[in-house]
Amino acid sequence: KELALAPKDDFDRSKMEDLLKQRFFYDQSFAIYGGVNGLYDFGPMGCAMKANLLQAWRNFFILEEQMLEVDTAMLTPEQVLKASGHVERFQDYMVKDLKTGECFRADHLIEATFEKMLADKKAKSDKKDEIRKILPLIDGMSKDDMGETLKKYNMKSPVTNNDISEPIEFNLMFATSIGPTGQLKGFLRPETAQGIFVNFKRLLEFNQGKLPFAGAQIGNAFRNEISPRSGLIRVREFTMAEIEHFCDPEKKDHPKFSSVADLELTLYSGCNQMEGKAPEKWKLGEAVKQNLIANETLGYFMGRIYMFMTRVGVDPKRLRFRQHLSNEMAHYACDCWDAECKTSYGWIECVGCADRSCYDLSQHSKATNVKLVAERKLPEPVTVDVVECLPQKSVLGKAFKQDAKAVTEHLAKLEANVVTQLEQAFNDKGETEIAIDGKNFTIKKEMIQVKRQQKTMHVEEYVPSVIEPSFGVGRIMYAIFEHNFKVREGDEQRTYLSLPPVIAPYKCSVLPLSQNAEFVPFVKQLSADLTRCDVSHKVDDSSGSIGRRYARTDQIAIPYGITIDFDSLNTPHSATLRERETLKQIRVPVDELPALVRDLAQGRTTWDEALEKYPLFVQQEASK
Amino acid sequence: KELALAPKDDFDRSKMEDLLKQRFFYDQSFAIYGGVNGLYDFGPMGCAMKANLLQAWRNFFILEEQMLEVDTAMLTPEQVLKASGHVERFQDYMVKDLKTGECFRADHLIEATFEKMLADKKAKSDKKDEIRKILPLIDGMSKDDMGETLKKYNMKSPVTNNDISEPIEFNLMFATSIGPTGQLKGFLRPETAQGIFVNFKRLLEFNQGKLPFAGAQIGNAFRNEISPRSGLIRVREFTMAEIEHFCDPEKKDHPKFSSVADLELTLYSGCNQMEGKAPEKWKLGEAVKQNLIANETLGYFMGRIYMFMTRVGVDPKRLRFRQHLSNEMAHYACDCWDAECKTSYGWIECVGCADRSCYDLSQHSKATNVKLVAERKLPEPVTVDVVECLPQKSVLGKAFKQDAKAVTEHLAKLEANVVTQLEQAFNDKGETEIAIDGKNFTIKKEMIQVKRQQKTMHVEEYVPSVIEPSFGVGRIMYAIFEHNFKVREGDEQRTYLSLPPVIAPYKCSVLPLSQNAEFVPFVKQLSADLTRCDVSHKVDDSSGSIGRRYARTDQIAIPYGITIDFDSLNTPHSATLRERETLKQIRVPVDELPALVRDLAQGRTTWDEALEKYPLFVQQEASK
Repeated sequence: KELALAPKDDFDRSKMEDLLKQRFFYDQSFAIYGGVNGLYDFGPMGCAMKANLLQAWRNFFILEEQMLEVDTAMLTPEQVLKASGHVERFQDYMVKDLKTGECFRADHLIEATFEKMLADKKAKSDKKDEIRKILPLIDGMSKDDMGETLKKYNMKSPVTNNDISEPIEFNLMFATSIGPTGQLKGFLRPETAQGIFVNFKRLLEFNQGKLPFAGAQIGNAFRNEISPRSGLIRVREFTMAEIEHFCDPEKKDHPKFSSVADLELTLYSGCNQMEGKAPEKWKLGEAVKQNLIANETLGYFMGRIYMFMTRVGVDPKRLRFRQHLSNEMAHYACDCWDAECKTSYGWIECVGCADRSCYDLSQHSKATNVKLVAERKLPEPVTVDVVECLPQKSVLGKAFKQDAKAVTEHLAKLEANVVTQLEQAFNDKGETEIAIDGKNFTIKKEMIQVKRQQKTMHVEEYVPSVIEPSFGVGRIMYAIFEHNFKVREGDEQRTYLSLPPVIAPYKCSVLPLSQNAEFVPFVKQLSADLTRCDVSHKVDDSSGSIGRRYARTDQIAIPYGITIDFDSLNTPHSATLRERETLKQIRVPVDELPALVRDLAQGRTTWDEALEKYPLFVQQEASK
Repeated sequence: KELALAPKDDFDRSKMEDLLKQRFFYDQSFAIYGGVNGLYDFGPMGCAMKANLLQAWRNFFILEEQMLEVDTAMLTPEQVLKASGHVERFQDYMVKDLKTGECFRADHLIEATFEKMLADKKAKSDKKDEIRKILPLIDGMSKDDMGETLKKYNMKSPVTNNDISEPIEFNLMFATSIGPTGQLKGFLRPETAQGIFVNFKRLLEFNQGKLPFAGAQIGNAFRNEISPRSGLIRVREFTMAEIEHFCDPEKKDHPKFSSVADLELTLYSGCNQMEGKAPEKWKLGEAVKQNLIANETLGYFMGRIYMFMTRVGVDPKRLRFRQHLSNEMAHYACDCWDAECKTSYGWIECVGCADRSCYDLSQHSKATNVKLVAERKLPEPVTVDVVECLPQKSVLGKAFKQDAKAVTEHLAKLEANVVTQLEQAFNDKGETEIAIDGKNFTIKKEMIQVKRQQKTMHVEEYVPSVIEPSFGVGRIMYAIFEHNFKVREGDEQRTYLSLPPVIAPYKCSVLPLSQNAEFVPFVKQLSADLTRCDVSHKVDDSSGSIGRRYARTDQIAIPYGITIDFDSLNTPHSATLRERETLKQIRVPVDELPALVRDLAQGRTTWDEALEKYPLFVQQEASK
């Protein structure tokens, strides 16, 4: 019932991590050099799973909605990230161990210390009540709040117990310098979204000026976490898959909303969080109707996120959508629901679904003087007064020489009310002063010509709103690992991963029953035929028993296993096909196997259909 | 005949670039902020093409050869790149404009100045002969050579004609700092290869200790080019696809070599380059036999590279393999053949195929004291004397306190001959001094125990050799663009891209013949069916004539076009299917189209087969 505060289950994380490490799904980067915190390498199994996950994402989102995918630079000049607000605000607070210099994230330290105090049996119950009240507020604490809390509870370095510093701002972006002169400061992008925003004009043009449309990007982003410790959950370099859906702020309905309206999601609204209530199940249609979710487009994407996550292996019972409280919202967002997965680390954010409103486009527009707008048709034409300022180039050229260009550009861009002020000044004094980049220029009447006219407008410009579903690929993978790590009933030692075929690293195994030489040509031929069908597979012709080899393929989540046995040698040649979850086997003609496995792996046919079509194989029950 | 010195053809680069920019294949990054040199963004068309190219690469190399793909960190600590030699040697020389500070690559400046002098009609012919002799040597020039050349020919800044500085070393890696303390210096990786090398042990284990095997990685790398100017050819951030094939240095034959032995490649050997001879056509089998190519494995990969490049759209007549001269070889390579594509920029390196020997594994092993070796079976067992040094922990602990651990580790790792020296010293003086990290320790006899024994060895360890095919994805894409940019015969304005279907951004278009409302449900249904078959496609229901819309889809390389016309309304419903190269059309039942287009796009069936199966459609000849 009380999902949010449910006790951590008895999941054996280290057992799972052993499996993932041993079969090289992923492991710490540069381990032979001692490793670097917050950096991980995906091995062959993790890498194949990741590639499959991204392909599934592309098919589910980009292909299905005809989104415009881009692939933009990670190196980003400072200007861009100043405009987006990241230079000023993309920061965490840290404290330093005053003796060793080791750094800790202030909010994590406060939380950990509080949790330790709560677990302390000797602590007084009124103290504990006080702490329980502060805990949910940590995410929203200011620097001063944190400083006071650290002092009040006399917090120390968790490693050495030394005294710690006041909280210090620490910007999470990795800085570098672009080009040989060292004059162009840059950062590694902290999100892929900005690469889409700065291409808005090109994308709008590509879409022939029509809105809504979505840009999308899969790529790496970088955050210099202060003290990363939770495996794949908090890392310094990670892959994101982001969608920026541009739409008219006045029209946030969605034509396909009805296709998700009946989905039932677990929603943990801001109100429920504030009032200490539990998350609730809602039909999406109802949640939008009741204004719990702000609009159809946001609701549509939440539904699509839910469908995608469950399709790739997230347990729907361990998936909820939590609304951000206003004090924890990112600087660019005006509403945000996180898709959170329950893991042994607690509920972790895997997908953010934010309404960034028109924040980013407005900011980049301000910084560059480039209009980033779309047009909407007016219900009926409108007549407006237009005031244009036409700089007189030859006059300006003579007066300002090398500065003429800057002055001309400045004058050409003046807004109507400023032009009117200029005219006023000319009438009063015949000239006026203007400042450009800190330099003053005397502008005279003959330097500009003012043109006033009426125009009939059929369209008006507006800055589009952005709805952003943003996927943390590593975190999703981690949640999938936890939700699919299983133990065979009655055999604690036989752990396996029940990944859905669509993201399993290999789609099938090919195992000769024994090392009999007669099996070799069949294995070779089958492997070649599977390759021709683009079915990734693993041949295991090592000497272990067939049961041991099955167990090994189960550990790397191979959903289907083909075994060449003595019956395969007879015509018509056939082999057995085993399914990982049911452990059932069927006997299939060898030349039908590659297409069957491909269709099973791509979800074009189901195991139940295969069971109906082909005879069950039961002979080797003992060694399954 | 003389491929190397062939004059640049009359390719209209700006016309092609207009098309690529206008249809947003790619464009300069951060253009609204003025752009950053050497950074490019791929738009929807370029991004889809790139994703398709990488998928083709994965299928052709990783799946076919069961390579072990990894996905490793881009942020790399300094230690790793010190060991790999990049901190010291991954550099270019630059010169600075002494007044403006602008930087230029010294070798490019020399080359450009020489080429200008050669083009100068007034220059003396003996001067020109002299220059022609120096030109091919520029790649191998030392810093001093360059300095002298710059001075001798009185070279100036190409932009301002100001005086320039002496050549200055400039390391091409982007530096940053990892973690909050600023104490861990790092770089963005300059190649993806190191991520594979540092994971060698894990990969060998994953492969159950067996060699040969190949690691592979697709990912971004970064090089802070001094003055990038050639579009996609020289960029600061780019995607690579690298293969590291680990093998026994004594066994560089390849079991599948026969499958490529009959391929005829254009080879430009080091000898031919030195002697001013032209490249020659060779059968791969012959080239390996004659030792022109060092071994079968190198030859096998060159053949596979050739097959891949031509499959994805590189013109085989504009593809050659050029051997590196010894003075231009990278610091890690002992032999290298570049697959070069001819473009309007000249012959450009698109794939490097290098024998890195055991350089990298040895270096990382030295830096970390971690053995990076494989085992080979000895022809017969060998008996060896083994000397082990066993540190006596309790004695050491008392003697050296907090330093005991370092001393213990040092002693445990001593080689046999050093142990014997120690014993000698104990016999002479009862003790001896050793230095660890600059600190001296007095070691006494009782601190170690020496164990001598004989062991029978059945295997010996060795450091594997590495053959590395390394693909520059952006450069390959650029070559494909140039090789596939075409103009319709008799119509200069109708430019198009003849990309092979496997890498075309969209596989087909869906066009209603006119805006007749009766066509709408057919278009909608077909689009949904294509999506279900994972066929990327573009619906163009805008009002242009069908001919104009075909021209537009040709520009974005769409190979197949479906048109819904008035005949589509009759049962059995059918539509026309048009092929981009032949401009022929066939009439196909609507429900067969999605599978047909999918099979055509994946190369499972051919257009000729389709022409045989379905009736030719000729009615709308005028508007094709």
